[in-house]
Amino acid sequence: MPRYIIDLPFKLAFGAGKLKDVGDEVASYGKKVFIVIDPYLRGSDTENQIQDNLKRNGLDYITFDDISPNPRCWVVDRGADMCKAEACDVVLAIGGGSTIDTAKAIAITSVNGEDSWLYTSRVDEYVAEIKNPALPLIAIPTTSGTGTETTPYSVLNNPEVHSKATIVSDYCFPKVSIVDPELMVSMPPMITALTGIDAFAHALEAYTSTISTPFIDMVALEAIRLFAENIKECCNNGSNIEARENMAWASTLGGIAIARCTTTLPHALGQALAGLTDAPHGGSIACCIGRCIEWALPNGEEKFAKIAQIFDPSLASASVSERAAALPEILDKLWLEILNQNVTMSTYGLKEDQIEELAYIAYSTLYGGIKVFPRVASKSELVELIKKCM
Amino acid sequence: MPRYIIDLPFKLAFGAGKLKDVGDEVASYGKKVFIVIDPYLRGSDTENQIQDNLKRNGLDYITFDDISPNPRCWVVDRGADMCKAEACDVVLAIGGGSTIDTAKAIAITSVNGEDSWLYTSRVDEYVAEIKNPALPLIAIPTTSGTGTETTPYSVLNNPEVHSKATIVSDYCFPKVSIVDPELMVSMPPMITALTGIDAFAHALEAYTSTISTPFIDMVALEAIRLFAENIKECCNNGSNIEARENMAWASTLGGIAIARCTTTLPHALGQALAGLTDAPHGGSIACCIGRCIEWALPNGEEKFAKIAQIFDPSLASASVSERAAALPEILDKLWLEILNQNVTMSTYGLKEDQIEELAYIAYSTLYGGIKVFPRVASKSELVELIKKCM
Repeated sequence: MPRYIIDLPFKLAFGAGKLKDVGDEVASYGKKVFIVIDPYLRGSDTENQIQDNLKRNGLDYITFDDISPNPRCWVVDRGADMCKAEACDVVLAIGGGSTIDTAKAIAITSVNGEDSWLYTSRVDEYVAEIKNPALPLIAIPTTSGTGTETTPYSVLNNPEVHSKATIVSDYCFPKVSIVDPELMVSMPPMITALTGIDAFAHALEAYTSTISTPFIDMVALEAIRLFAENIKECCNNGSNIEARENMAWASTLGGIAIARCTTTLPHALGQALAGLTDAPHGGSIACCIGRCIEWALPNGEEKFAKIAQIFDPSLASASVSERAAALPEILDKLWLEILNQNVTMSTYGLKEDQIEELAYIAYSTLYGGIKVFPRVASKSELVELIKKCM
Repeated sequence: MPRYIIDLPFKLAFGAGKLKDVGDEVASYGKKVFIVIDPYLRGSDTENQIQDNLKRNGLDYITFDDISPNPRCWVVDRGADMCKAEACDVVLAIGGGSTIDTAKAIAITSVNGEDSWLYTSRVDEYVAEIKNPALPLIAIPTTSGTGTETTPYSVLNNPEVHSKATIVSDYCFPKVSIVDPELMVSMPPMITALTGIDAFAHALEAYTSTISTPFIDMVALEAIRLFAENIKECCNNGSNIEARENMAWASTLGGIAIARCTTTLPHALGQALAGLTDAPHGGSIACCIGRCIEWALPNGEEKFAKIAQIFDPSLASASVSERAAALPEILDKLWLEILNQNVTMSTYGLKEDQIEELAYIAYSTLYGGIKVFPRVASKSELVELIKKCM
């Protein structure tokens, strides 16, 4: 069990319309704002509203929008140089997980000396110490999935070494996150589905991990319940603000669930896959999570059974084993419904001759998560498991 | 809705055996420790273990044990003078709610100038500003009820004016709370019942308040579920560590539920009653909570119904109104079972000719809570309601 069961050093403002507080929040922390924004939001009403609000609060700002999915470490370094050169004293992130993770890494890198990649956790390699407190960060997520607004993680991609790795530091926590479900209404169905799957996976992985706590169990089960009840409606009828609110809350709870726990086997495989093939994060999880659960059974049955029953209350009369065994198919069917296809690792471009490499990357860089999944995989077992995900 | 939906500036270590971390925790915050301890714990194994642990960590300490139920403000002032005279730089509280609330007020008062009572919230009277940050406080609850280990409140009693009032300040948050269910095993059944009722009331009042949030709802419902499943076992078989663990967690969750919300009508009446008659805190709630719910119906039906069904799943087929209406009797029966008597305000010594005064105190000092109960009482309605509690 972790040393602290509750230790959440951030503030979270949640609710439709909360975006209007942005100027107040930012003004508590600095004068010159480094805005990190998803390029798709440039020129949008959201950006205009934020800019007006900052100006009304007497704040100066510059804008950085060089963001891509699976954010590149060298982009972070460019942003950090710009942030430092402009003497910004507060960072504001508006966008999805990639945008916020980029902003987290910029907030750290701009006031420390090394390249951002060196601050990521990697086994058997030099990892630089974060000596100076990061610039204060205000985060405004526009997708419902990563939960990064409430986590101490920033996941970066280093294409030079075909690898993703994570900065793990309390300096990654935003000081304040503003979760405004109105910003999510315009998310297209595919992004809604992919980010929603990520949120669900955070909750499932934290809940079933061997280091979960009563606090994590409570938060994760609530996230799973809200995901099960709202994801289809969000995909089919994105303007339903109540469903969007529930999914935004599910995503935030998923983030809280992993903030002091960790993601486990599905994220280890998914993250390694995305490092190799640039698969979208949610898809990289969808194509392996069912297989991971099947492979782990009968370990962790009680918890897998509880999740299955949230999706399908008619399972109440089935045995624990039967309910747990039903979960992979429940998820496969749901993915087909919201992604409109059966996704596999092949779908995302993984070749047979890359399976060994994928297993190696997952095992060597993400073993911390692999070892707390209900069944702990050896490297050769990972290879067999990946074959089942093809 | 409050400005922040999550804002919990404390750390919480939870679990059987966690007491052993006390020296480490305290040493992070100071060198000379002002120990505030329940007098019943003097000479106990618990006190010896704590003292040994502090010594091993090179910490000096002095001990203050002048604690009573419904803690007196002048006792706080004596403690604060002593803490200041001895130049202590960290406060450690071990005991029930009275002990921890006394320690919170000492941590504030010893480094600010005024008498402790002047820092309590009171309407239409001078309230002193807390200018200096309180001394860091480490709290170790030994009862399961008040949840004070996770709240920004310290409730004090001023017998001179027959009144209880509360210091409300983020400086009341302990830096770290250590919740170790092993410390609760020796709690006698009556204290177990009374403190358990308090924990339940926090959860019910926060959940049904008109300012609750999705976070508060989640936390409060989990507290209610754990209370319903464990309170009888804790009273009947106090050495059942699993039941104690669940009740300790329920109590902590109850504290979190009210930390950024508030208690409402039952606590307003109960607190005013205890100010007049020195009724035990849990009893002062038990004798009015059922009547408050009856009086509020049909307001707040959905939530009262949900609580009733947690206690009695066989209500599933009843209508929302029927379920809600069943709650007062469910609670009355439970109080009889765990307190071994039907408690009323008369039981705790309230006289007919004090009813007007009680209504006046509750209304004038605790209106903030009264106004967010599902039905808002006028002063004359309070009088009628109190008569039903006699």
